[in-house]
Amino acid sequence: MTDVISLYINDGLSEDEVARQAALYGPLVEDIRALIPLGISTQADDDEIRRAREHLAAAAAILGRRRDPGPYGTRFNDAGQFRSWGNAALGLRNAVAPPLKMNTDPDGRVWTDFHLHIGYEGPAGHTHGGILALVLDQVLGDAARVGASPGMTGTLTLRYRKPTPLGDLHAEAKLDRREGRKGFVTGHIAGPDGICVEAEGIFISPPWIEDARAKIDAQD
Amino acid sequence: MTDVISLYINDGLSEDEVARQAALYGPLVEDIRALIPLGISTQADDDEIRRAREHLAAAAAILGRRRDPGPYGTRFNDAGQFRSWGNAALGLRNAVAPPLKMNTDPDGRVWTDFHLHIGYEGPAGHTHGGILALVLDQVLGDAARVGASPGMTGTLTLRYRKPTPLGDLHAEAKLDRREGRKGFVTGHIAGPDGICVEAEGIFISPPWIEDARAKIDAQD
Repeated sequence: MTDVISLYINDGLSEDEVARQAALYGPLVEDIRALIPLGISTQADDDEIRRAREHLAAAAAILGRRRDPGPYGTRFNDAGQFRSWGNAALGLRNAVAPPLKMNTDPDGRVWTDFHLHIGYEGPAGHTHGGILALVLDQVLGDAARVGASPGMTGTLTLRYRKPTPLGDLHAEAKLDRREGRKGFVTGHIAGPDGICVEAEGIFISPPWIEDARAKIDAQD
Repeated sequence: MTDVISLYINDGLSEDEVARQAALYGPLVEDIRALIPLGISTQADDDEIRRAREHLAAAAAILGRRRDPGPYGTRFNDAGQFRSWGNAALGLRNAVAPPLKMNTDPDGRVWTDFHLHIGYEGPAGHTHGGILALVLDQVLGDAARVGASPGMTGTLTLRYRKPTPLGDLHAEAKLDRREGRKGFVTGHIAGPDGICVEAEGIFISPPWIEDARAKIDAQD
């Protein structure tokens, strides 16, 4: 397991600048996200597709002039404010992401109500099993972190109990227990007719987090 | 487990019409796919974002005029030609999909060499664990089908051995054995430095496939 400390980037942005960028780039990415279902479903003819592609090329030329070299997955600033704008499940700036918005209850349960458009389809009219895995990996990982056992996914086991529709879904997870560097988390995804997928995950804390924990314990 | 026969749609398109639509809509969706990394990385200013969004709105207006009501995940025609243009992992028309292009060896091994752009990021510079699950669910499911044990995902277990980079990756899977309606499949994803994720899946054939199999056996 590679040391994870290099996987987070401090870009030193002020909180005002973070808010400005969210207000500027969030709506842009909503526009890109909305194009995905249109790419799947449009019945536009040759001439219409030609004109639509001219607009997409013009937008890409404008957006491509100056680019941040990345990586983008998770960044933080000097105030300790984390943001996962590039994350494939959470990202404000990532049109692949639904995006998930996480909530945390006082007992450590992490949950999200989210909507999946037709870009997340597998079997006709249903959510792709792998997209459900994407959601659960993120929710279980967040529950490990909230439960004071942050780490990278070690093992993820998914049981598909019935086909999951597209549309409005709910996911939740909670840390069950901790054994050394391993956090054991369980969770599920539910649709309008109940639980569709159950998940168990083991999340493994990297050594540098263990070192920080030991120092904090020594100060107690 | 819901009967799966309704999860495939026969839309009766001729092979010429299928080829025409692939040539028309494939490049459109490549354009949408290329916008996703730009949404994450662009440093365009307010005026540039305003102009880019005008182009995106114009494209969306054109594409949204006439839409196929769906579902889109998997369709086939009278010639028995299957296509998964809406599929979140494979879809020619789905910008969420990398898309994966599957190959099959004579021994039943299914494999794909694919490229993941920054829209598939989790930890900075690395692939999201859930995206790796998406790829493996699809590759293992295809290996079950190729191994004459087609079905829906019942259980999927993933072991993350080391962080997976973005970029060029390889995935493969093969049916190990069949027990009644269950097909047991194993596979992995490898990067430039070897295997990053291992997977085991159980795929469960729906009763209608079993019925068809019994009829074929009775004819032998």
